[in-house]
Amino acid sequence: MKKLVRFGVSLDHHLLDDFDRHIQSRKYTNRSEALRDLIRDKLVGEEWSKNKETVGTITFVYDHHVRDLTKKLTHIQHDFQGLVLAGMHVHLDHDHCLEVLVVKGKGSEIKKVADALISIKGVKHGKLAMTTTGKGLSL
Amino acid sequence: MKKLVRFGVSLDHHLLDDFDRHIQSRKYTNRSEALRDLIRDKLVGEEWSKNKETVGTITFVYDHHVRDLTKKLTHIQHDFQGLVLAGMHVHLDHDHCLEVLVVKGKGSEIKKVADALISIKGVKHGKLAMTTTGKGLSL
Amino acid sequence: MKKLVRFGVSLDHHLLDDFDRHIQSRKYTNRSEALRDLIRDKLVGEEWSKNKETVGTITFVYDHHVRDLTKKLTHIQHDFQGLVLAGMHVHLDHDHCLEVLVVKGKGSEIKKVADALISIKGVKHGKLAMTTTGKGLSL
Amino acid sequence: MKKLVRFGVSLDHHLLDDFDRHIQSRKYTNRSEALRDLIRDKLVGEEWSKNKETVGTITFVYDHHVRDLTKKLTHIQHDFQGLVLAGMHVHLDHDHCLEVLVVKGKGSEIKKVADALISIKGVKHGKLAMTTTGKGLSL
Repeated sequence: MKKLVRFGVSLDHHLLDDFDRHIQSRKYTNRSEALRDLIRDKLVGEEWSKNKETVGTITFVYDHHVRDLTKKLTHIQHDFQGLVLAGMHVHLDHDHCLEVLVVKGKGSEIKKVADALISIKGVKHGKLAMTTTGKGLSL
Repeated sequence: MKKLVRFGVSLDHHLLDDFDRHIQSRKYTNRSEALRDLIRDKLVGEEWSKNKETVGTITFVYDHHVRDLTKKLTHIQHDFQGLVLAGMHVHLDHDHCLEVLVVKGKGSEIKKVADALISIKGVKHGKLAMTTTGKGLSL
Repeated sequence: MKKLVRFGVSLDHHLLDDFDRHIQSRKYTNRSEALRDLIRDKLVGEEWSKNKETVGTITFVYDHHVRDLTKKLTHIQHDFQGLVLAGMHVHLDHDHCLEVLVVKGKGSEIKKVADALISIKGVKHGKLAMTTTGKGLSL
Repeated sequence: MKKLVRFGVSLDHHLLDDFDRHIQSRKYTNRSEALRDLIRDKLVGEEWSKNKETVGTITFVYDHHVRDLTKKLTHIQHDFQGLVLAGMHVHLDHDHCLEVLVVKGKGSEIKKVADALISIKGVKHGKLAMTTTGKGLSL
C-alpha cells in the first residue's frame, strides 16, 4: 500500500526562489515532484554503482551499407538474448539507421552488451542510458 | 566518395600496451576503429554543445496506474510532433512501463522535450541519450 | 538578510526510507541539508550552461622532466592572468607533479584555459571541476 | 626506458578533417598528442572503475560565517589524514571561501572524503575531479 508521508524542509527564501524558477523552466508543476525526481535520480545512480538488477537503453547509429553489419548486430543481440527485451529501428536518412535496445540485467552485464555493439565497425556512435526497472523506486 | 587516409601515430610502448588491453576488453578488433570511436564521440559532443541539428533518445520509466498519465505523455509527444520520430513501449512488469522516443532537432529543443516528459508526475525516472544524425560523421 | 522558509514535501514512505538510508551513507545529518545540496547542484549546472560568471578548478598531472613543460605551463597561466586566481603544486612522486588552479570567469573562458593546459605535451591527464562563486547561491 | 612505437591509423578524410579542426580549437599542436590524451583519459576512467590507487581533487565552496564550519572541515581532513596530501584556500569574496584538497588513495576512499566534506552544512557546493597518480600512465 502506498502511504504518503509529509515532512518539512527549511530553505533560505532566495534559494527557494531560484529553485522555483528552475523547476518552472523544466515544466514541473509542483516542488514535491521536482524533489522526488532529484531523489529518485540519486537512487538510480546507486542501483548502477552497486551492480543491482536494472534497465538500460542502448542507442546506436550506423551506416547500413557497411557489409555484414546488420548480420553482426543481430548476432550480438542473440548472444545476449536473455538480456535484450526489445528493440526499435528508425531510418534516419538514406544511409543511417538508429537502433535502440531495451536491456535488463545487472549493470555490468548491460555495459557489456553496449560495449559489444558500439565497438563494431560501421557503428558511428553509441550511448548507454542508465535507468531502472522502477521496482524498488516509489512514486 | 569515401577516401581513406593513413597517418602515423607515435605512442610510448607502455601506453600502447595499456590501450590494446583496454580495447580488447571492450571487444574492439582493431586499433583504428577504437580511435575512430573516440574521435567521433568528441565530435558528437561538439554537435550538442554548438546546438546543431542532432538526434537523441529519451528513455523514461513510469507507473501506468497513475491517473491520466498516458494521456499526458501522449499530449506532450503531440506538442512536439515535428521532433519525435518514433517511440517504443516495453512492459517491464505489472506496474511499470518503459518508453523510449527517438527525437530529432536542435540539441536545445530535444532537451525541452526530455524536460517536459521527465517532469510529469508518475514518471519515475528519465534519461536523455545524446547521439547524432550520423550525417556529418564519417566512418 | 537571511530568511528561512519552511514548506512541506510529500513522499511515499518507501521513497523516504530509501532516501534516508542514502543520505546516511553520504554522512548527511538532516534531510533539509541533503535536499538543499541537490537543489544547489542543479543551480550550479545552470550557471555553467548559461555561461554566467562562475568558478572552476583545473587539475592536471604532468611529468616535470619533459623539456620546457613548466615554462609553457607558466606562460599559459600568464596569458589568462585575469582569470587564474591561485594555484597549488603537489609533488606526487619523483616524476609526477599535480597542479590545481582556481579560475574565475565565464564558463566558456574557464573551459578555454583548461583546454590550453590539458593539450600540452607532457600533461598526462587533466580535469575541470565546475563549481561556483557562491554568490547567487543561498545556504 | 621510454620506447616510442609508431603505428598507422586509417581514417576517412572527412573524419580526419573534422578531427583536425576540433583539436585545433582545443589548442593541440599535433594529432598524436590529441590521440594520446583521449587514450589516457579512457585509462584513467578504468583506474577509477576498478578502484585502484589514484588521485582526486575535491573542490568545495563555503560561507565561512557559518558557525563551527571551519572547525568541522579541519576535523574531517584530520580523520582522513593519511589520504589528504595538501590543500589550498582561496578567498572568493567577503563571505565565500573555496578550498581544494589533493587526495590520494583508492577511488572508493577518495569518494568517502568528498561525501563527508560536501555534506556539511555551510558548504554550498562541492565537486570531485578524478585524475591519476600518473604512475602507470605513459606519456
